[in-house]
Amino acid sequence: MRQHSPLQPLTQIPAHLQTIADYEKEAELHLSHMVWQYLQGGSMDEHSVRGNLSQFEQIQLLPRMLKDLTQGHTQIEILGQRFPHPIFVAPIGHQQQFHPDAEAATALAAEVLGSNMILSTFTNTDMRELKQGNPFKWFQLYWQGEREKSLSLVKMAEAHGFKAIVVTVDSPHSGIRDRERHAFFELPKYEPQPHHFIQQPQSKQNEHPLFQGLMKIAPTWADILWLSQNTSLPIILKGIVNPHDAELALQHGVKGIIVSNHGGRVLDGCISPITALELIKNVVPTDFPVLYDGGIRRGSDVFKAIALGASAVLVGRPCIYGLATAGALGVAHVLKILKEEFEITMALMGTATVDEINKDYIFQKS
Amino acid sequence: MRQHSPLQPLTQIPAHLQTIADYEKEAELHLSHMVWQYLQGGSMDEHSVRGNLSQFEQIQLLPRMLKDLTQGHTQIEILGQRFPHPIFVAPIGHQQQFHPDAEAATALAAEVLGSNMILSTFTNTDMRELKQGNPFKWFQLYWQGEREKSLSLVKMAEAHGFKAIVVTVDSPHSGIRDRERHAFFELPKYEPQPHHFIQQPQSKQNEHPLFQGLMKIAPTWADILWLSQNTSLPIILKGIVNPHDAELALQHGVKGIIVSNHGGRVLDGCISPITALELIKNVVPTDFPVLYDGGIRRGSDVFKAIALGASAVLVGRPCIYGLATAGALGVAHVLKILKEEFEITMALMGTATVDEINKDYIFQKS
Amino acid sequence: MRQHSPLQPLTQIPAHLQTIADYEKEAELHLSHMVWQYLQGGSMDEHSVRGNLSQFEQIQLLPRMLKDLTQGHTQIEILGQRFPHPIFVAPIGHQQQFHPDAEAATALAAEVLGSNMILSTFTNTDMRELKQGNPFKWFQLYWQGEREKSLSLVKMAEAHGFKAIVVTVDSPHSGIRDRERHAFFELPKYEPQPHHFIQQPQSKQNEHPLFQGLMKIAPTWADILWLSQNTSLPIILKGIVNPHDAELALQHGVKGIIVSNHGGRVLDGCISPITALELIKNVVPTDFPVLYDGGIRRGSDVFKAIALGASAVLVGRPCIYGLATAGALGVAHVLKILKEEFEITMALMGTATVDEINKDYIFQKS
Amino acid sequence: MRQHSPLQPLTQIPAHLQTIADYEKEAELHLSHMVWQYLQGGSMDEHSVRGNLSQFEQIQLLPRMLKDLTQGHTQIEILGQRFPHPIFVAPIGHQQQFHPDAEAATALAAEVLGSNMILSTFTNTDMRELKQGNPFKWFQLYWQGEREKSLSLVKMAEAHGFKAIVVTVDSPHSGIRDRERHAFFELPKYEPQPHHFIQQPQSKQNEHPLFQGLMKIAPTWADILWLSQNTSLPIILKGIVNPHDAELALQHGVKGIIVSNHGGRVLDGCISPITALELIKNVVPTDFPVLYDGGIRRGSDVFKAIALGASAVLVGRPCIYGLATAGALGVAHVLKILKEEFEITMALMGTATVDEINKDYIFQKS
Repeated sequence: MRQHSPLQPLTQIPAHLQTIADYEKEAELHLSHMVWQYLQGGSMDEHSVRGNLSQFEQIQLLPRMLKDLTQGHTQIEILGQRFPHPIFVAPIGHQQQFHPDAEAATALAAEVLGSNMILSTFTNTDMRELKQGNPFKWFQLYWQGEREKSLSLVKMAEAHGFKAIVVTVDSPHSGIRDRERHAFFELPKYEPQPHHFIQQPQSKQNEHPLFQGLMKIAPTWADILWLSQNTSLPIILKGIVNPHDAELALQHGVKGIIVSNHGGRVLDGCISPITALELIKNVVPTDFPVLYDGGIRRGSDVFKAIALGASAVLVGRPCIYGLATAGALGVAHVLKILKEEFEITMALMGTATVDEINKDYIFQKS
Repeated sequence: MRQHSPLQPLTQIPAHLQTIADYEKEAELHLSHMVWQYLQGGSMDEHSVRGNLSQFEQIQLLPRMLKDLTQGHTQIEILGQRFPHPIFVAPIGHQQQFHPDAEAATALAAEVLGSNMILSTFTNTDMRELKQGNPFKWFQLYWQGEREKSLSLVKMAEAHGFKAIVVTVDSPHSGIRDRERHAFFELPKYEPQPHHFIQQPQSKQNEHPLFQGLMKIAPTWADILWLSQNTSLPIILKGIVNPHDAELALQHGVKGIIVSNHGGRVLDGCISPITALELIKNVVPTDFPVLYDGGIRRGSDVFKAIALGASAVLVGRPCIYGLATAGALGVAHVLKILKEEFEITMALMGTATVDEINKDYIFQKS
Repeated sequence: MRQHSPLQPLTQIPAHLQTIADYEKEAELHLSHMVWQYLQGGSMDEHSVRGNLSQFEQIQLLPRMLKDLTQGHTQIEILGQRFPHPIFVAPIGHQQQFHPDAEAATALAAEVLGSNMILSTFTNTDMRELKQGNPFKWFQLYWQGEREKSLSLVKMAEAHGFKAIVVTVDSPHSGIRDRERHAFFELPKYEPQPHHFIQQPQSKQNEHPLFQGLMKIAPTWADILWLSQNTSLPIILKGIVNPHDAELALQHGVKGIIVSNHGGRVLDGCISPITALELIKNVVPTDFPVLYDGGIRRGSDVFKAIALGASAVLVGRPCIYGLATAGALGVAHVLKILKEEFEITMALMGTATVDEINKDYIFQKS
Repeated sequence: MRQHSPLQPLTQIPAHLQTIADYEKEAELHLSHMVWQYLQGGSMDEHSVRGNLSQFEQIQLLPRMLKDLTQGHTQIEILGQRFPHPIFVAPIGHQQQFHPDAEAATALAAEVLGSNMILSTFTNTDMRELKQGNPFKWFQLYWQGEREKSLSLVKMAEAHGFKAIVVTVDSPHSGIRDRERHAFFELPKYEPQPHHFIQQPQSKQNEHPLFQGLMKIAPTWADILWLSQNTSLPIILKGIVNPHDAELALQHGVKGIIVSNHGGRVLDGCISPITALELIKNVVPTDFPVLYDGGIRRGSDVFKAIALGASAVLVGRPCIYGLATAGALGVAHVLKILKEEFEITMALMGTATVDEINKDYIFQKS
């Protein structure tokens, strides 16, 4: 365990920070041991945390040469909205632990880089304070235990210019986090927590605290359908990995899904999300948006996920590495690194546009 | 080799013990080097000891989201007997080396946690001293060299409330245990050894000491049939890994089997028990109880074994880690950890009952 | 990072230098840290650099015994030209950083050993200074941004006895080279750089510096066709890994290809070139020359590449290990080691001639 | 590199020597660095040396329980000759470097343990000095450059009670042995070398020293046929790994083959011999003897090779570990360890005789 106090955030970017891995090393110096364990850790033995990273190695790139790429660009369209590039900022809560500017800094960097920002329910920056003119922001919803409380957050998001609601469905329980428990991690008590209304349910005597307790406040498919019918915003589910659930999503008013294993933080040993992406793309209509979340550390990872069918990708921990290192400046640099790596990968692959990228450009050993 | 004396068992559970891995590290401190080698070691190069642990990594979980789990529970039924949950205590002999309270402590913890206790023939606690009212106890039989001696133990088990006889069939020879031999391990001479009647056979001159010696006191299928016809208790065979033997079991009056490679202690390089489980489930009737033993260290391992067809699972070394650390208190905590991890895994997988768990919830790369 | 100054090049070969791996260790002692990173490094995480080496382990040799090999030899024929053996010197630029004699030393060694020398556009030794009588030399062309500039280099090569033009097509961008960037690598400013005319394009305001900048000076298939129509020399493309591109090459006047991932220096995660070789051989005519480049460190690697269909192989970094160690003498020894290892492998495999080597002599687990 | 002088051979066996791995560690203490490199090393990067050991891990055992094994034994029959067990001593030359008693010690141990001894052409103990009454000895022949010289050795073997001629065919060149070269290994000049008549051929000027030199003294299929027609002893070829060669062997008077990659000492990257065994068993008649050589370190390895079709197995380096440690006593103990491990494996697998062992008892992941 590191003994020294965390370094202060930087105010300019030193020359040695050139990759996400560089930022990962740097960020550790700027965070307490406890917060670092929270950030890096995952569920149980962290097979999924590691698997999210290593899975990309199994996918090889199969480039084309000598194509004319002078009309190249990285723009994409999802649900009628046009984005400058497919690298989105994943919803991560409680960002004040990483940097005093919290989500405000992340949002600012995302806007500058043209990255769609997905704001967490557990944001320390009130959603009402995010710039309304920025068209690239979605709101992530954790179910608030009951329909009306959940809807009130959705209505607030509608009112403040968010363009979609991302409902996280993979964590009715937050998972068994050994690293956090071993570090005796506690969330800091920042006040106020703007959007977090959930109260732990009390299970009655003789009732099971999990099944008859926590599960009572978890959402169901019926709740999702109800929500989709009560908002003008498209509902996107985050945390779907089973093709059957992708099919159910289509039947319950859902407009898109984000394949994710929650960064390996909830269910250790969950199917590799890149494999889940492939399984799910086999069962949903071609134009149904399927986004990808998990383990993106390189522009080539972005390319691979898109080649397997992703409409866009979410980037989580790397943004926090940037945030912890240098606030908005750091997040912006992290996003810039990924964007440039993705562009260079596109050029080397012989793909002028994101739409051109498909399975013909990858090779997987069977 | 550690030089210090073993620590005394603890009398309360410190906060850092949160997983089976934590208990494994702690237990080593409370045991002599020689006993630790006995506990941890296996046969020859211990490929099977390690394989029992690593095999679970090959199986990924494929969860369902947004299901209603408020009626969830972990109960199961085997041979008409209902159990609170499917995590059983494996038969392990000679427990006095690990803690002075020996099997009495393990049995007490099992009862409190609702775990079915399988008492070893080589128990240091007389079976007659285990609480008779506890419905969750089975007796494990090592063949006593001849039919009548074996039956006398079975009759004693019948008389004292045991609900099934588990005959261990995979170790006519105890295996080549390099670690034990290198530590010059000897079983302590606790007196009396309540149920251990076997005497080593003397092979005559010119006879082979193994084939014409030890093999003469090993049981055969005819012995199993005879035993099943002479007891009112169901006979369950422990140590079956070959599908052909599973079929023979059905033909010889056997009511269930436990797939096991004896914790890697007997035949190094034996088929991975999780693979054997799959092979066997393909050939036996769906309602024929097939239990699983080997390498369970997490609640998610329990889930995976059940998804592959296990009716319940046996947990061995983890209980001893608890016993060595803190006697009955430690065993109880170990069982509680596994039970809670299993429940959380069920909740995250979207499975309300054990019966719902099946192969649709796992993904194995072909 | 090594602190001492680089050793001077050797003037004779010490006895401990017996393999390419020996030369690799030795070469590091004779180069500055910065130049060593440039030589050894590759793109991003260097999966491809490592993969180029490890891929050969997956291919096992299946030898024949007791054949008459007394008429054995290693000669091959490509595009009507006969070569003493199939081990060619890969084009590597800027060799003055490795040894003051630069490409002149490498070319001399290649000539003595009968290795076909492929001279890089970025040579520090003017192509006009290479011995004209040596029939074993090809010229490697980096596209010079426009057709006439490119053709002028080709015409110079025609005039000075080069027998083929190798156009490198896999690096419209030079790749993301973390190691070089972390070492703050800069090419030394040797003057004059004889054949390097390319000027970085200026992208206009609001234009994308990559797609509307660098890509404007990259060659296309039309350029290749034009070039093939304006030179008497055969055009060979280096850097093809996609079977579709191999088919296009045939349609655009190309006479051969070199399967290569540029030593892992450009596109990290690119398909393993040995796999690409197999895919490509499935689609091109049997007599279309397909050469192999990447990771050759042993004579047995040469054999494996040929068994999978290569007409000849290129060797890059090993030659530089020899050059850095002992100039022309070192390169010659490196080539001699590879040639003798290849001959002994042929003898042990029961193959008298290179033409006999085919897939029947290898075994790959499916 | 170890600095101390080698220890003297032991005269009794200490208690800690219980496995082949124990003997391997001990042997190193009793040999000079140079001889140890010779013994342990192999060809080039030693992938095959390591692969010979690791390949057994891929094969899992699938035992049967509750069978009557009281009539069990380990006897086998090959070419009409009955052997007490299937563990043979591989031909290894130059044994005087390992222990002053050389092959005489090895032969004595083999006789005591009932192991068939295959005496190398390069023996330091004259074949005429081995006990004639021992029925379990074969003679290994390295081709002597020409037919008559080779036949004279065969005739000597006939005259001195050897029961078969094992012709090693996989090493027309002795291989590229990096470790030996790096240790500047030289064979000691023991005099006289009883059976080693080969003289290096002189290639004429302009002739290739390998193809027109060494290959001229290598045997061909015609030589094998001729030899088989000129001796009353059965000819067995050692070093066959290609199924086509196994078929040719049948057509050239050969009575059996030994699948081997020469302990990884000749052709690095050669097909794993256990895979070769499977391929070859698919093409030869069931009763054609196919022996196995390579990487046997455990009784369970013997079982696995037999399950895949081997009639018997050869053990090389382990015998030398015993010889270097304690002369005949050490070799005898090594053979006893393997024999007992094999017997216990048979018992645990439920196989009473070697003939019963087959593919049904193993499991290989496809």
